Amino acid sequence: MKVTVGKHSREYRTVAFESLTNQVKLIEQRLLPHRFKVVATRDFRATARAIRDMVVRGAGAIGATAAYGLAQGARAFRGGDLHEFERHVDAVFHTLKAARPTAVDPVNAMLQVRHRMAEGQTVSERKTLALEAAEAFANEDVQHCRNIGDHGVKLIQSGMNVLTHCNAGWLAFVDIGSATAPLYVAQAQGVSFHVYCDETRPRSQGATLTAWELAQQGVSHQIIADNAAGLLFARGKIDLVLVGSDRTLGRSGEVANKIGTYTKAVLAKQHGVPFYVAIPFSTIDWELNSGQQIPIEERDEDEVLGAWGVIGRRKREYVRIANPTSTAFNPGFDVTPAELITGIVTPAGIFKPTELWSNRHVLRGPK
Amino acid sequence: MKVTVGKHSREYRTVAFESLTNQVKLIEQRLLPHRFKVVATRDFRATARAIRDMVVRGAGAIGATAAYGLAQGARAFRGGDLHEFERHVDAVFHTLKAARPTAVDPVNAMLQVRHRMAEGQTVSERKTLALEAAEAFANEDVQHCRNIGDHGVKLIQSGMNVLTHCNAGWLAFVDIGSATAPLYVAQAQGVSFHVYCDETRPRSQGATLTAWELAQQGVSHQIIADNAAGLLFARGKIDLVLVGSDRTLGRSGEVANKIGTYTKAVLAKQHGVPFYVAIPFSTIDWELNSGQQIPIEERDEDEVLGAWGVIGRRKREYVRIANPTSTAFNPGFDVTPAELITGIVTPAGIFKPTELWSNRHVLRGPK
Repeated sequence: MKVTVGKHSREYRTVAFESLTNQVKLIEQRLLPHRFKVVATRDFRATARAIRDMVVRGAGAIGATAAYGLAQGARAFRGGDLHEFERHVDAVFHTLKAARPTAVDPVNAMLQVRHRMAEGQTVSERKTLALEAAEAFANEDVQHCRNIGDHGVKLIQSGMNVLTHCNAGWLAFVDIGSATAPLYVAQAQGVSFHVYCDETRPRSQGATLTAWELAQQGVSHQIIADNAAGLLFARGKIDLVLVGSDRTLGRSGEVANKIGTYTKAVLAKQHGVPFYVAIPFSTIDWELNSGQQIPIEERDEDEVLGAWGVIGRRKREYVRIANPTSTAFNPGFDVTPAELITGIVTPAGIFKPTELWSNRHVLRGPK
Repeated sequence: MKVTVGKHSREYRTVAFESLTNQVKLIEQRLLPHRFKVVATRDFRATARAIRDMVVRGAGAIGATAAYGLAQGARAFRGGDLHEFERHVDAVFHTLKAARPTAVDPVNAMLQVRHRMAEGQTVSERKTLALEAAEAFANEDVQHCRNIGDHGVKLIQSGMNVLTHCNAGWLAFVDIGSATAPLYVAQAQGVSFHVYCDETRPRSQGATLTAWELAQQGVSHQIIADNAAGLLFARGKIDLVLVGSDRTLGRSGEVANKIGTYTKAVLAKQHGVPFYVAIPFSTIDWELNSGQQIPIEERDEDEVLGAWGVIGRRKREYVRIANPTSTAFNPGFDVTPAELITGIVTPAGIFKPTELWSNRHVLRGPK
């Protein structure tokens, strides 16, 4: 997407590859929204560190980063011995996988790259195929987000107020994003609308990342405390809710997403406001039968007991807000049942949550 | 309530008066929860500044502070001329009133003191009556909170999980508090229960003040992000919601309270969990017919765009969290309709919200 720094505007992806220097280029997301900077990783180990240290985050973005990282590692190999080369690529794979051990996207992305590499007969051919496959993975991520936008844009009419939660934006993907895709397409088509961004405590991805994204694209928006959405619903000031998802159950239509999503779905139902979830294919879980089987990650208490921000122009600091002798309970996400969800926006179209299973052939589900 | 600093425990009120030195003593609430300190104001002007600068906050607490401030000002008068004395008391009244111009409690409290002073025939008698009336005002505030606790304790059974929002605790009153009163009485009776404190963005009074209060009294509790309540409801982990109110409409039973209260009421209804509001008589508005007539205060955007906290042991600082080129919408409270409220806990008993009007004789309403 377009980013303006000072007087200069340029198109960026969150993740890109520079083949001449064999570097992965990443938007340094930990500095946002206070500073925009692109960093380059010089070898696959640095790429793994960038994944581990959250320079880059978001399912699509870390998938593409790992794919590029694998190609980067393969291309750095010296020599022509295919056996040694494959041992080296194994090591690269495991280093990148270990950077975010519970994430499934980097593994799937790298398996896709390795599958393609196997078509090559020589080290040189496999190096070439590795980069081609990584580029294809990144481009497909972008194309899927574009398709989500093309389907979802029909939901947004002129004069609407849209509520979002957390960040399912282009910073979480290679470009465009999932929940933000319909907004960007609508903006490009000249539809005028307004977005309320839940700040999304405790990590405030709405106030930081989504707000930064929308500001960069010139989308009219305001940040609200998570507490303020109820008043907006009651006043008739929200016409559509649009969120992303960490995991959507293909069998039940339940949606696991950032903590607080369920509350917004309950409010939307209470006020008769449509509630849509935008997802790429990769977040659909075709195995689990019920959302109760999804383990709810409990995150560090410090996230709730304080906040990260900047003082003046100084660097990011953590401040302790809460009573120092109190503890916190910090679940990372919640599960929204199918009956609270109006529709699921996918690259293949919009579906009712209970119709994912019967449409699994177009949603890349099991045969 | 009992406060422990280091190894020493002592009973405190948020507001007290020392007649020997003619000083108002206040818990310096701006330092909480990171530091406990009692400050003394040496004259009525300093007392007015303490009200203005939020050293003390909460309806009951600022009412008592203004009552004491009026007595303090009256007692500082030199001479015996009744006319001059009354002119002086007028000036004291207006100085204290101007400290928080939109608040109704300081004015009502001071009018009560002046009404009592008028019974005196001399300056000396009126000075004595001023202090007596101020003490009576403070003691009545405490007694009413005690009565709320005695009625509300019946709602709390052993093993319950209680959700609170914001701070309607003893720091907002002279002692005991409204929404916290049933908790403290239950704790004293040996009932074992657990409290989830909504952090209550944007000002975080739940994470700071309520959590500090509960920790001081040894009440089992955890702070949660406002977003996390939905998951707790869905898991059956909340048995009772107990909140305070800024304004309760005696005619309709609607409750205006800190932003986010309405959302918790919708969630409680969705999950069949009882939702109670605890209030002193003074917050009942007998005039307005509908909550739509209540103007919703829009507060400073900076509250949403950042947070106050401490870094290490240094003093409180404001950090900017949000994207610097975004704006915020920051409504201060919302209105919960009667149909979402199970009951209103008052010093005179527990009432259905729609039965306030028919019980106005015991709730100090209009004849």
